[in-house]
Amino acid sequence: MTITSSHVRGRTDLCTAIEDELSGLIGKRASAATAYGPDFARLWALAGQNVLGGKFVRPLLLMETYDALQKPHHQGHGTTETRRRETAITIAAAIELLHYAFLLHDDVIDGDLVRRGHPNLIGSLLAEAGENSRAGSALHWAQTGGILMGDMLLAATHQSFARADLPHELRLRLLDLLEHTINETVAGEQLDVGLGDGVIAPDLQTILVMCGYKTATYTFELPLRGAAALAGADFGVENALATAGRHLGLAFQLQDDLLSTFGDPRRHGKDPFSDLREGKETAIIAHARTTNAWQDIEAFFGRPELSVDDGEHVRRHLSDCGAEAFVQGLIEEQMQAFNNQLTTTIPASVRNVLLDLAGQLEGRQS
Amino acid sequence: MTITSSHVRGRTDLCTAIEDELSGLIGKRASAATAYGPDFARLWALAGQNVLGGKFVRPLLLMETYDALQKPHHQGHGTTETRRRETAITIAAAIELLHYAFLLHDDVIDGDLVRRGHPNLIGSLLAEAGENSRAGSALHWAQTGGILMGDMLLAATHQSFARADLPHELRLRLLDLLEHTINETVAGEQLDVGLGDGVIAPDLQTILVMCGYKTATYTFELPLRGAAALAGADFGVENALATAGRHLGLAFQLQDDLLSTFGDPRRHGKDPFSDLREGKETAIIAHARTTNAWQDIEAFFGRPELSVDDGEHVRRHLSDCGAEAFVQGLIEEQMQAFNNQLTTTIPASVRNVLLDLAGQLEGRQS
Repeated sequence: MTITSSHVRGRTDLCTAIEDELSGLIGKRASAATAYGPDFARLWALAGQNVLGGKFVRPLLLMETYDALQKPHHQGHGTTETRRRETAITIAAAIELLHYAFLLHDDVIDGDLVRRGHPNLIGSLLAEAGENSRAGSALHWAQTGGILMGDMLLAATHQSFARADLPHELRLRLLDLLEHTINETVAGEQLDVGLGDGVIAPDLQTILVMCGYKTATYTFELPLRGAAALAGADFGVENALATAGRHLGLAFQLQDDLLSTFGDPRRHGKDPFSDLREGKETAIIAHARTTNAWQDIEAFFGRPELSVDDGEHVRRHLSDCGAEAFVQGLIEEQMQAFNNQLTTTIPASVRNVLLDLAGQLEGRQS
Repeated sequence: MTITSSHVRGRTDLCTAIEDELSGLIGKRASAATAYGPDFARLWALAGQNVLGGKFVRPLLLMETYDALQKPHHQGHGTTETRRRETAITIAAAIELLHYAFLLHDDVIDGDLVRRGHPNLIGSLLAEAGENSRAGSALHWAQTGGILMGDMLLAATHQSFARADLPHELRLRLLDLLEHTINETVAGEQLDVGLGDGVIAPDLQTILVMCGYKTATYTFELPLRGAAALAGADFGVENALATAGRHLGLAFQLQDDLLSTFGDPRRHGKDPFSDLREGKETAIIAHARTTNAWQDIEAFFGRPELSVDDGEHVRRHLSDCGAEAFVQGLIEEQMQAFNNQLTTTIPASVRNVLLDLAGQLEGRQS
């Protein structure tokens, strides 16, 4: 009980510290933005609301890993240690801005106006522009806002990394990490869009690579490597953490796909057939394509007007042909590889952070 | 003659140095990109072709100003001076990457596939995807490439600034300048789109502010301030240069609008009525709106199907109502303000760089 309480209190304190840092980063820019008129200021106000309403998954992972990597006698005392921890919070917050920049450009690319049941920045701009704009141009105006705000958040992320109060060599190492992350995420986004647009062939290997690049790199590898670099951990530890993070990230992504198709929509809150209607190329679909069931599924796949009856029919086929079990097997493989990494050079304190995160995978409904 | 030859040779040497730096920046990333598959590598290959085919207006302005600000006994000898000049070339090249990032996102926002008579990156991706993609999705794929490549160039710009071999304080000053530039350019782009989409009212003041933000800041103010900061010039000199640059930038932008509407299409190579067909809110149009001629012009403005006869009719009206002369007057005002700045604290050597640039304004046909 004591451990749990202290753990929860620790996370609440971290959330507050991250929120304060993000409020500062965004608030400063939101104030300056008012000089450029109400429409420009509105971008920062909306971005601020959305970023500060997030769950801070990535910054929390960075900070919990950072704290766990500290040797007990180092924790939070000397001036150097205090300054370094403040810098870690700045980098953690910058990673949340990066996440939001990616989300915004992804929403522009996908034409999405809603995220988790609420209007996203584009949806808000669209609703507000509705009455003032020329016929048919409100969506253009709103999506332009999404592109431009994404650009400014990408810039703000780099500014935080570039100004970090760190020895020059360490700052360069974090800048390398940021560059690597952006390249992989962009490559993953491009693969995802290419699969959807039919430009890239939907084989399983490509889909798994896409999932790793698009999400696992910036959600798991970046915070873990960042924490290791900031804490001065050995490169061996950093690599082991990154590898563990990639396996865990892929497992989460594969589970997302399973939940979207086979999960309980009352729990996850999404349209249960949206992946099928969009023709989303997932590992489930890649496996189904290799079975005899595909000829029956294909006619329904990617049809925006798919009925509930047809959707349930396809879902049954996807389960019966073994695609559901196949992806469950892939998740187990990733979790096995993740667990194997934990027994290597990763310190016990950090292992608990990762096991805690992995625990969220089990019994996940949304 | 001697002066001209040495001047031309100086510019050729600078072009080569800037081109080498850009080749290095892009080449390194283009090689690394091949690890992520042919589609990702194609983005870097196309961006490289387009960036290296540019005229380097902004980097040349930075370097010519930087060189002109050097005291004669400092020029290119000591190790410190040589290193600083190399850094200046790196920053100059990074500004060209920023320019191209802005162009790409602007092309996505405007739906443009062509720039200066050649397919832009999006147009090239569209042509290449044509046969492979799902029906109707090739443009989506191509525009996604434009968004993502713009993101990577924006990131690359920041990486160059963040890693610049400079004292920490000076690097921070350049990072401030980059942030200021991106904010103003984004604010200008948003105003431009808001004017086009009818979300923002097209009064003259808004249009002039938009022109300054969208183009003058990053094309003139950024290279001039950057050169001053890198050369260790007084803040008074930096401010005078920036002010001069903003006036010159606005004059160029206003002249662009005049050329597009009243210029000789055989010289400038653009559709002579494209601004009218698009309904582009320029200073010309803002003035015409205040005259009695507007009721006759309005019916034709923003009509994509505008005929050549109608276009010529509108053009005559715009001239007769005084809009052409009004904008010529605005340009003269800006040039007067520019010339006034030159007589302040700007050193004579730098004055020549600016006068040379201003000279390109006169007799400009394209």
